[in-house]
Amino acid sequence: MAAARHCTLDLRLGAQADCEAILKSLRSVFQEQGMTESLHAWQDHGCLATYLNKNGSFANLRIYPRGLVSLDIQSYDGAAQAKEVDSLLNKVEERMKELSRDSPARVKRLPPIVRGGAVDRYWPTADGRLVEYDIDEVVCDEESPYQNIKILHSKQYGNMLILNGDVNLAESDWAYTRAIMGSGKEDYTGKDVLILGGGDGGILCEIVKLKPKMATMVEIDHMVIDGCKKYMRKTCGDVLDNLTGDCYQVLIEDCVPVLKRYAKEGRQFDYVINDLTAVPISTSLEEDSTWEFLRLILDLSMRVLKQDGKYFTQGNCVNLTEALSLYEQQLGCLYCPVEFSKEVVCVPSYMELWVFYTVWKKAQP
Amino acid sequence: MAAARHCTLDLRLGAQADCEAILKSLRSVFQEQGMTESLHAWQDHGCLATYLNKNGSFANLRIYPRGLVSLDIQSYDGAAQAKEVDSLLNKVEERMKELSRDSPARVKRLPPIVRGGAVDRYWPTADGRLVEYDIDEVVCDEESPYQNIKILHSKQYGNMLILNGDVNLAESDWAYTRAIMGSGKEDYTGKDVLILGGGDGGILCEIVKLKPKMATMVEIDHMVIDGCKKYMRKTCGDVLDNLTGDCYQVLIEDCVPVLKRYAKEGRQFDYVINDLTAVPISTSLEEDSTWEFLRLILDLSMRVLKQDGKYFTQGNCVNLTEALSLYEQQLGCLYCPVEFSKEVVCVPSYMELWVFYTVWKKAQP
Repeated sequence: MAAARHCTLDLRLGAQADCEAILKSLRSVFQEQGMTESLHAWQDHGCLATYLNKNGSFANLRIYPRGLVSLDIQSYDGAAQAKEVDSLLNKVEERMKELSRDSPARVKRLPPIVRGGAVDRYWPTADGRLVEYDIDEVVCDEESPYQNIKILHSKQYGNMLILNGDVNLAESDWAYTRAIMGSGKEDYTGKDVLILGGGDGGILCEIVKLKPKMATMVEIDHMVIDGCKKYMRKTCGDVLDNLTGDCYQVLIEDCVPVLKRYAKEGRQFDYVINDLTAVPISTSLEEDSTWEFLRLILDLSMRVLKQDGKYFTQGNCVNLTEALSLYEQQLGCLYCPVEFSKEVVCVPSYMELWVFYTVWKKAQP
Repeated sequence: MAAARHCTLDLRLGAQADCEAILKSLRSVFQEQGMTESLHAWQDHGCLATYLNKNGSFANLRIYPRGLVSLDIQSYDGAAQAKEVDSLLNKVEERMKELSRDSPARVKRLPPIVRGGAVDRYWPTADGRLVEYDIDEVVCDEESPYQNIKILHSKQYGNMLILNGDVNLAESDWAYTRAIMGSGKEDYTGKDVLILGGGDGGILCEIVKLKPKMATMVEIDHMVIDGCKKYMRKTCGDVLDNLTGDCYQVLIEDCVPVLKRYAKEGRQFDYVINDLTAVPISTSLEEDSTWEFLRLILDLSMRVLKQDGKYFTQGNCVNLTEALSLYEQQLGCLYCPVEFSKEVVCVPSYMELWVFYTVWKKAQP
């Protein structure tokens, strides 16, 4: 299949780089492999040597005059070429260490990046960092009318639900479900609960165990439910097998008209749990309609929340301070005054710390 | 300073790649930037087009005949060039999407990799995956007689201790300390406790709060203690400020002779907590002296452990199943029969699930 293996090896020198000396020291390693050199030198920007191998692999050795030497080797993803490339990298690494013997320098070799593999292991964090997951299987990959739905298997996290490229929840992420239910501090027995979104069934499954009066979940995408019912059973148990039970019901609907209907009817809940998408990352309030959507949901949710009820939701990665503070500003613009608290939680599969909010109506004077 | 920004963009086609057609569609984007092309075509392996810019940036467009197109752009790490490169990538991404319109294809763009930056953000996991940390400052970087000691600041995790390139503990990692102390299920009041290693002071700090009879910590590297005392105060509090207190003492010594001395004296502890390095990854038992060291420590630890005492230690990443089972085999080769249990814990800064062991002496018949 189509996949390439991309290796990198960098030498950061403590001083200016002497292109000629570095080339002289390293090029023989490539030539010994039968690779042919093409050299390009800039007037002021150092040089780039490209080494081509008959088997289709190639290397780029870029020497920046200000003291950085970067080496990239790209080859077919296969055991034989990988071994050859690793042995070549070992030799270059050794020479790089010799080159840096007399000055404070740093040699850094990263794990190889697999490009275009059948199983995509790279799902960046919400704050834009590159992370590689231990994914070994594509369990499902489908387009619904609303989004791309992937369930991928991670060796350590179990099956992971990824919606439109966003890691939503893995079977290991009980910490997410616990946090968005109020961190074990709430008593759901006999209570009326409304869950917005939550198609993976994790929240519903936990709440049903706690014997609520009625838990109503409103999820727009039937295909998410079908996928999770089948492949995320450690998360949802059997609550998605039937869409109704003794103390729960699942509505396959857009939550906005449902909320409007409940508000009109004067129906109120002890708990509203918003498990829709995370707080938007964009900080341009005017341009972004997702902020408007978020405010609409918040406003409607407060209308169907009892005066002493609680609203739980996720925020976003703790590093996205601007987006989070913009969200907190929105909480000041609702039809009724509210107060809130937040908690930072480590959700295993997210590979970043996540903020969760509790919102409640301000006590009436 | 010396740092480069490396961007990647991949197109995985559902069919064989037509080199000519792909080149024809993409090359003008580079030419519009004034980049000059050098083309190399293999007989059976597709082609590589290198585009050079006068400002020192360059691009490699590699077309593999089996259906993968990989693009790499490397430039100086600076705002102006980054903006230019991102706009170029946007254009190529658009054309790639056009190219893949008629077949199931995937376009993937990863966050840029910073090469040779003053702050190194890439600290791979124990199971060899590439992860980027949100590190924004090198707090300290020193060579001790035993190891390289780095303390780096992560925006979300606080200061992080990295020994010989291995993420040891961040200020956010209370979960590690809790797990290696028995997950809150032990009563340390009035007990005799021995800590092997633990130079960051996290375990000692928590145990001292629990009023042991005496907690003795044996750490070989004074420079680790000095660094943590200064920069990891959220972890160690003030227990490292003085090396002795009412109910604790810190010995700056190699723990092996200390253990031998205690064993000879017949001194015994209620708890032994081994916070030395993780279980070795290498699975070649014969070649690796670290396994021998580990067995020696285990044996000596059992000799100084009371019959009803407990020994706690970390294992390694849950994915390293071979190394972990080899460790468990070692537990069967000690001078006295032991039993053990294990627990999988999410330590925030590790970005992987970690195994912790509890070992105890088998009840005498």
